[in-house]
Amino acid sequence: MAGPLPVSPLALKLPALPAVDGVRLAVGEAGIRYHGRADVLLAEFAEGTTVAGVFTKNLCPGAPVTWCREVLPGGTARALVVNAGNANVFNGVAGQRAVEATAGAAAKTLGVKPEEVFLASTGVIGEPMPAQKIVAVMADLAARLGGSDLAAAARAIMTTDTFPKAATRTARLGGVEVTIAGIAKGSGMIAPDMATMLSFIFTDAAVPSPALQAMLAKGVDHTFNCITIDSDTSTSDTVLLFATGQARNKPTDDPAHLADFRRALGEVLHDLAMAVVRDGEGAQKLVKITVDGAVSNHSAKKIGMAIANSPLVKTAIAGEDANWGRIVMAVGKAGEPADRDKLAIAVGGTWMAKSGGVVPGYNEAPVVAHMKGREIEIEVDIGLGQGRATVWTCDLTHGYIDINGSYRS
Amino acid sequence: MAGPLPVSPLALKLPALPAVDGVRLAVGEAGIRYHGRADVLLAEFAEGTTVAGVFTKNLCPGAPVTWCREVLPGGTARALVVNAGNANVFNGVAGQRAVEATAGAAAKTLGVKPEEVFLASTGVIGEPMPAQKIVAVMADLAARLGGSDLAAAARAIMTTDTFPKAATRTARLGGVEVTIAGIAKGSGMIAPDMATMLSFIFTDAAVPSPALQAMLAKGVDHTFNCITIDSDTSTSDTVLLFATGQARNKPTDDPAHLADFRRALGEVLHDLAMAVVRDGEGAQKLVKITVDGAVSNHSAKKIGMAIANSPLVKTAIAGEDANWGRIVMAVGKAGEPADRDKLAIAVGGTWMAKSGGVVPGYNEAPVVAHMKGREIEIEVDIGLGQGRATVWTCDLTHGYIDINGSYRS
Repeated sequence: MAGPLPVSPLALKLPALPAVDGVRLAVGEAGIRYHGRADVLLAEFAEGTTVAGVFTKNLCPGAPVTWCREVLPGGTARALVVNAGNANVFNGVAGQRAVEATAGAAAKTLGVKPEEVFLASTGVIGEPMPAQKIVAVMADLAARLGGSDLAAAARAIMTTDTFPKAATRTARLGGVEVTIAGIAKGSGMIAPDMATMLSFIFTDAAVPSPALQAMLAKGVDHTFNCITIDSDTSTSDTVLLFATGQARNKPTDDPAHLADFRRALGEVLHDLAMAVVRDGEGAQKLVKITVDGAVSNHSAKKIGMAIANSPLVKTAIAGEDANWGRIVMAVGKAGEPADRDKLAIAVGGTWMAKSGGVVPGYNEAPVVAHMKGREIEIEVDIGLGQGRATVWTCDLTHGYIDINGSYRS
Repeated sequence: MAGPLPVSPLALKLPALPAVDGVRLAVGEAGIRYHGRADVLLAEFAEGTTVAGVFTKNLCPGAPVTWCREVLPGGTARALVVNAGNANVFNGVAGQRAVEATAGAAAKTLGVKPEEVFLASTGVIGEPMPAQKIVAVMADLAARLGGSDLAAAARAIMTTDTFPKAATRTARLGGVEVTIAGIAKGSGMIAPDMATMLSFIFTDAAVPSPALQAMLAKGVDHTFNCITIDSDTSTSDTVLLFATGQARNKPTDDPAHLADFRRALGEVLHDLAMAVVRDGEGAQKLVKITVDGAVSNHSAKKIGMAIANSPLVKTAIAGEDANWGRIVMAVGKAGEPADRDKLAIAVGGTWMAKSGGVVPGYNEAPVVAHMKGREIEIEVDIGLGQGRATVWTCDLTHGYIDINGSYRS
């Protein structure tokens, strides 16, 4: 990369972030790739912390993803180590050894079991992971654990991100107020070079790990799994949720009792996912696509993602062109039930196409004005059923080519 | 579009093109969208001409595709009308009427049945199709039918194409030499605005339509269906093959007797498909991706297309960066059986990654030199089975954004 990227025009400011009881954080400079900035995060969790995780579906995952998948069924966590600069992907046996060395060092330093240490790495792939650089700063990180400076943590895990990402909510659970706070990084759905999506969410609630896992999986399905930058799928995407139990609510797995917690968790995940889209590589516009009238919610989401991933739709939006013809094409290529003659398309609330043709004499002025804005809304009515989904993406601009078409060195 | 595009650096010259017995051609200026150039093609075929067709899988197809699908089972053809400038897509009932008017006018003028008239349109979508402009020039076109100026035909069907595309071969069939000659247009797999892929192939061979259909479908599967520009799927993609029977070979549907014809047809389809990729919007490099060792040929093709459609792989190639990490990612996202630790990747014949990691101390110099060329070769060995496929694409450049991100008007 040739110097830092300009901050995305869609960037959001960090919200005020609370401390989460039972979570202690420290960031440090391991110097893996970056210099003069924090590039490693250590989190220590109170005894009894439960954990849930969702990982990339990519079949060539990084060694840290394989590690987390192996230890997740244990259901408990005492530590998290995240580094930026090297993703430890496609390093063969050496990658596995680097993972074991990092987890082992954290476990020894904190006096916990290695299988209670979770790991995530983001950065270049196929370069040997210098785990010794993380091991070398472990004692110092442990000595400085304290407080809950989530803003510093959000910055330490950035790669090509142009702004740090965090979100927080409170919820009522078992008669007490609990806190949820999370951080994320990512500026493409992927980019094995640099732009993997990672998110870590912390709560002081007490929730058994199976219930935590169910809520996280469902929440991710409607948030992180409904965003796309370029259709590519990282080898390292990871979302982890840690619940320390320090709020002293009575643990429950009753869905009714967990309703407000689920709502708050969903909002945190939504905010973080939106922050990732807003930092899409080269993004100039945030695009919300709502598909209604599909034969099922699943079908609606597939159609939405076909629109969101279409290079032709995305370049049209970059050109501020409300090109509904390309949306028709994308609906048709999704492979889901659709009837050309029942399809309707609106941009910015104005229905441009209906019943298999352009709406005669529709007023183009509000559409033209809408396309010049930063936030674009597309609605598609398939006209066949009740299926509905909303997905988000960004436009495809020269900035994307600049970022991804440059030499690595 | 702001003026004509520069000719692709990957452009090929038209080969010398033969006349095909039983095919008479004429081009004319209907002025549908373009002015000062031919934008409509009429072809008339000898009595007894058989026909085969393959069409877009897009579920929102244009009215001409619907028409062709309806008349194709008849198995015979007497005429073809193609226009450039308006795709007649998403025009509702008016689109259907335009199709009927065009086929009816050609049928009446030539004294054939409407259901023996095949149609294709390419250009903007969602704009009413002025069929009367085609009808108005029909008599003049019919009066000028003659010869077989395939080069003029190739030019008349161009939209955003930067060069005309044609190919020809001869074959032995039933003891006589037969000729196959085809034309194509297309500069994205799609772009409902302008860049639909159309191809028309003519032969003087006598082949029953079921055998013709089988050979065309199989041939397209290994050629046009193995190329991709931007993963988008046109609403109008059409390949039609007309066999006039004027070579007077004994008609046969015996696959053994058709072997040489099948070989020649495959070569024509291959040449035409390569010409389309070479005119990919903004293309600076032609990319050939061979996947070997997959669990099946189908699986190999899916993996190859995942690589070919990855914006991250395509931008890396534009940047002349042999970024095998992005290839690993694309293999993993294909969803097909793959084992990270058995994967091997070569660029320009140099194996860079093997056995789950980078090849230690591989010689980068030939790879760097290869990436600077116009034709890039990527080989992937999945290491699991015997499945094999080759697909072709082009790089993703600023030119693509320029072409597709500009205003329509």
